Amino acid sequence: MIGDKRPLSVKDVVIDSNSFWGERSRVVRSVGLPYQWKALNDQIPGAPPSHGIHNIRIAAGRGTGPHRGPVFQDSDVAKWLEAVGYQLAVKPDPDLERAADEVIALIAEAQGSDGYFNSYFTVAEPSKRWTNLRDQHELYCAGHFIEAAVAYHDATGKTAVLDIATRLADCIDSVFGPRPGQKRGYPGHEEIELALVKLYRTTGEKRYLDLAKFFIDERGRRPHYFEMEAKARGEEKTPPWADSTYAYWQAHLPVREQTDAVGHSVRAMYLYSGMVDVAIETEDEGLLDVCKRLWRNVVDKKMYVTGAIGSSSHGEAFTFDYDLPSDTAYAETCASIGLAMFANRMLQCDLNSEYADVLERALYNTVLSGMSLDGTKYFYVNPLEVWPQACDQRRDKSYVKYQRQPWFGCACCPPNIMRTISSLGTYVYSQNESMICVHLFAAGRARFEVGGQEVLLTQVTGYPDSEEVRIEVSPQQDVEFTLAVRIPGWCESPRLMINGVEESVQRLVRSGYAHIKRRWSSGDTVDLVLPMPILRVRANPAVRACAGKVALQRGPIVYCLEEVDNGSNLSAISLPTDAELTSHFESDLMGGTTVITAEAYRDDESAWSGGLYGKERTPRRPIAVKAVPYWKWANRQPGEMLVWLREDPC
Amino acid sequence: MIGDKRPLSVKDVVIDSNSFWGERSRVVRSVGLPYQWKALNDQIPGAPPSHGIHNIRIAAGRGTGPHRGPVFQDSDVAKWLEAVGYQLAVKPDPDLERAADEVIALIAEAQGSDGYFNSYFTVAEPSKRWTNLRDQHELYCAGHFIEAAVAYHDATGKTAVLDIATRLADCIDSVFGPRPGQKRGYPGHEEIELALVKLYRTTGEKRYLDLAKFFIDERGRRPHYFEMEAKARGEEKTPPWADSTYAYWQAHLPVREQTDAVGHSVRAMYLYSGMVDVAIETEDEGLLDVCKRLWRNVVDKKMYVTGAIGSSSHGEAFTFDYDLPSDTAYAETCASIGLAMFANRMLQCDLNSEYADVLERALYNTVLSGMSLDGTKYFYVNPLEVWPQACDQRRDKSYVKYQRQPWFGCACCPPNIMRTISSLGTYVYSQNESMICVHLFAAGRARFEVGGQEVLLTQVTGYPDSEEVRIEVSPQQDVEFTLAVRIPGWCESPRLMINGVEESVQRLVRSGYAHIKRRWSSGDTVDLVLPMPILRVRANPAVRACAGKVALQRGPIVYCLEEVDNGSNLSAISLPTDAELTSHFESDLMGGTTVITAEAYRDDESAWSGGLYGKERTPRRPIAVKAVPYWKWANRQPGEMLVWLREDPC
Repeated sequence: MIGDKRPLSVKDVVIDSNSFWGERSRVVRSVGLPYQWKALNDQIPGAPPSHGIHNIRIAAGRGTGPHRGPVFQDSDVAKWLEAVGYQLAVKPDPDLERAADEVIALIAEAQGSDGYFNSYFTVAEPSKRWTNLRDQHELYCAGHFIEAAVAYHDATGKTAVLDIATRLADCIDSVFGPRPGQKRGYPGHEEIELALVKLYRTTGEKRYLDLAKFFIDERGRRPHYFEMEAKARGEEKTPPWADSTYAYWQAHLPVREQTDAVGHSVRAMYLYSGMVDVAIETEDEGLLDVCKRLWRNVVDKKMYVTGAIGSSSHGEAFTFDYDLPSDTAYAETCASIGLAMFANRMLQCDLNSEYADVLERALYNTVLSGMSLDGTKYFYVNPLEVWPQACDQRRDKSYVKYQRQPWFGCACCPPNIMRTISSLGTYVYSQNESMICVHLFAAGRARFEVGGQEVLLTQVTGYPDSEEVRIEVSPQQDVEFTLAVRIPGWCESPRLMINGVEESVQRLVRSGYAHIKRRWSSGDTVDLVLPMPILRVRANPAVRACAGKVALQRGPIVYCLEEVDNGSNLSAISLPTDAELTSHFESDLMGGTTVITAEAYRDDESAWSGGLYGKERTPRRPIAVKAVPYWKWANRQPGEMLVWLREDPC
Repeated sequence: MIGDKRPLSVKDVVIDSNSFWGERSRVVRSVGLPYQWKALNDQIPGAPPSHGIHNIRIAAGRGTGPHRGPVFQDSDVAKWLEAVGYQLAVKPDPDLERAADEVIALIAEAQGSDGYFNSYFTVAEPSKRWTNLRDQHELYCAGHFIEAAVAYHDATGKTAVLDIATRLADCIDSVFGPRPGQKRGYPGHEEIELALVKLYRTTGEKRYLDLAKFFIDERGRRPHYFEMEAKARGEEKTPPWADSTYAYWQAHLPVREQTDAVGHSVRAMYLYSGMVDVAIETEDEGLLDVCKRLWRNVVDKKMYVTGAIGSSSHGEAFTFDYDLPSDTAYAETCASIGLAMFANRMLQCDLNSEYADVLERALYNTVLSGMSLDGTKYFYVNPLEVWPQACDQRRDKSYVKYQRQPWFGCACCPPNIMRTISSLGTYVYSQNESMICVHLFAAGRARFEVGGQEVLLTQVTGYPDSEEVRIEVSPQQDVEFTLAVRIPGWCESPRLMINGVEESVQRLVRSGYAHIKRRWSSGDTVDLVLPMPILRVRANPAVRACAGKVALQRGPIVYCLEEVDNGSNLSAISLPTDAELTSHFESDLMGGTTVITAEAYRDDESAWSGGLYGKERTPRRPIAVKAVPYWKWANRQPGEMLVWLREDPC
């Protein structure tokens, strides 16, 4: 059986509000989501307008004017709604719920009698529905709405939103499929596939699963749907910006023949996630093997140390193996969210800490970097090296921002961060009938059904600042099951105590999880100590951009230098291989931050005797450097930032 | 008196055909110019058509069809003609002369009765002459034709070409100027200024000098001519691609207020060159001071070690101080040609070897790099680091080529290289009534008039492979003058012998030139020994792209590593600070090449135990590396190239 270890519902996981993730979630709930509601209503002065809500109002006949903004603005509203659903699942919030219900009512009015819902086509081009799947994001927007509906329904039990979703899915199901008169198309931006599997799981309606599988199986087949569709529109060829091989859309080959992660990286992640979902539900080992192959290419060849992917601005895309430049990285926030989604699904199929390691790397670094500490500013692009003057004055770096932005014309990332942080619970645990799996360390409580018993599990931890995690297990009655606790790949000497008695981790570990099979009684504890010496991370020598360089990591947190702590010209700094690296917690720094300090060297500009070029090496002087978590960069004064430091072997 | 040390005419300098520059010039004459004649006639299979000759044929009423290609195609023809002129000045070539006369006759037919000549406007938009100086390159093309005419007339004594030029200049002089009814405009692409000074020097007609000065003085004044002109065309604003400050065109400020080199780097160099010319002819110390200030900014802050300038593809432009990325360098060949022109003019005003050092750096590295060894392929862009896969697969590096091209749609560089190499003689020497200056070392003979005597001067040298230069001085009769011989800035321990007797260089040198004042007799010799230990060059620590890196230079030649010699992944190589660097001459390598070898290290990919990231440093192994002159790169199999090597202090 594939994928028997399912994540918990968000409802069953409560993150402690004063913990690392609880604090992020609190910011999302109390600041980020209200802020984004204003943004979606075009009420943020100085920010690019979203038009998201107004477009739907027009489609519902309650507003006037043309549709504005990109064709996919509905999806931003949907992701916001999905995030609200996750928040309401664990804690009431009348204001958010009222706003959400308002949106849902509006969408109900905007939905056609045939179930169709897309504000762009309803308002601007009603006759052109489903005529340009390649570019127009109809199925993408539908997918996001379905995800939102499932989340909001799960949280609130309200059926109105699910009704809209099923009618929309039924509409799509009537248009697309293998039957005569149906379109054999598939989306240019994947998303509907995984959404339909969610809807199938919620409703039990197998047609939705079949449709998801259909979309996946049709993708990339010849004759090529995007070509036929373009011909039908009277277009001769793919537009000049498009990729003639269709790799941009992961439609260059049938998915089962694909070996490398290519094209738009967010699309790729959503596709692969949907493929795992379909593989699970249809017991398709072959399809899962494809996913494993694509996973290997991503994490072995195309992932930044921060868990970012997609190294090219052009096409927001993967490029080629080991092409991971730091200063021209695209590294879209959404792509790392997609990588977390993909990883979470792979974990369901294969309990291997490698997946959770990548999940953790993406979440704690790039995903968190996407949002300011206060929840109201966002990064779309997450570079690993920034020289603000170059961003301002070099056109080829103009997409690299050194300050988070209040909103974007294409604002996919901000609400995506909201829904991801709000659904963190679904990433922390999974289970099957005889096993509870702990993937991430996050203080809080979770509820499981194992062996016919309800089991409460509590994590007490200050992770990732702290190295210690206590897991308290409280079954209703004594019950036997396996508790599989992840031992992170970055941790070299973990310790584990069961009810205070130290156990051999090595004996317990399989594929990176300590498997503790026993009859559990209420009050049993597992104590985990995950020592976090500061790691020097080096890249595979094939990564040319990182040659001779080192990154610092403590636990799951990748660090960076910022100008505000270390002065300008961070490239002039080199870290000796034998430098002592120490960490300490600064409670006043950005809400409390574990920083890394070290003795390093700085090329001494003032001692440089040459002009632009000279014969002597620049004298260097010892300096103290201070590194902060990458995800917290750019929350103080703007300046340079650097993840990969020059390493000095002397 | 400003600028009393004038370069020799090409007629007076014969470069030995079997010498370094003689060989390059031979390739230009016997291969490059005939090849380019075909290119200008659209006869190179597989190369982008020039349309250059055909456009003029249409303008002359001898061809049909629309004008094709960019508006400035006439200038490619002009630069080719100028190069032919320089070649004919020193050696007859009936085929080239026949082709040149053919072009000149065609242009005479295409010229209007009012003296106007521009094939684009004549063929395509006759009513729009002089209505868009900002973009349409009319004055630029005119300037190149004037330069060509002066060169061809000087070489052949034929007056037809000069007649066309003076009629064209008179036409321009009637249209532009301070008098009522005249346009107070100036070119978007500078070039006419220096050309008019050349024409003034040839004809003695002061109006041409006045017009050059007018163009320079009008530039950047308010109200802004480009704005007024755009309004007159009915255009509201500068187009979106344009720079609203006009810095792209060096028209952001009146030139006398300019302090930094900005905008399109070729335009900047042509402007600054024209400014020096006007400063010389009008004895304008203030204008010369501006040139010195701009020079300082270029060479102290914005020049690659290869003498390349203009680090941004966008706008082919300068960016900001110390922004000199290696892999995304634009570094246009024409810009280094322009830098050589600027340097050569500064040398006329200030006999300081700093100017000649930059001149030599540009000529021996980037300018030469622009042409393949066989003379038929060209680089427009001259990066300092190339990873071919990135050029092929990253859109943001798509302008970086790793193989020279047979031609370009915008082919400014190929004929520019031709005219530069063909006129090398004008860069080697200058003189005034009492002084002969030797700026560059190039085997051959030159003829001077000093102190009323004809003086022949012969250089015997295998420079830059050889360290030795013999200068033989042969006046008709004994005569006193100063021979000023440049002591290159890169040379730490030069030696100098007069008639075999060693002299103290230190005693003779002022501003980088050994001043040898004496009564010269026929057969006198000056022997120069310029030891060329291999230099490790480091960049100012403010150049972030070069932090921790070293470049190798021997004499004036900057070296690089190529994949063909050193395997792939050149970034994995590091050069110990104490590595012994040796050079030797390989007679079979690319026509005979002095190569540098060293013991270095290579990060051993095969010994890397991690996946994409790991905790250990990659074990490194000793390897022998081999560096070749930068200008010869990409003449063997395509592959990676690297100028700045990681330096390993251990």
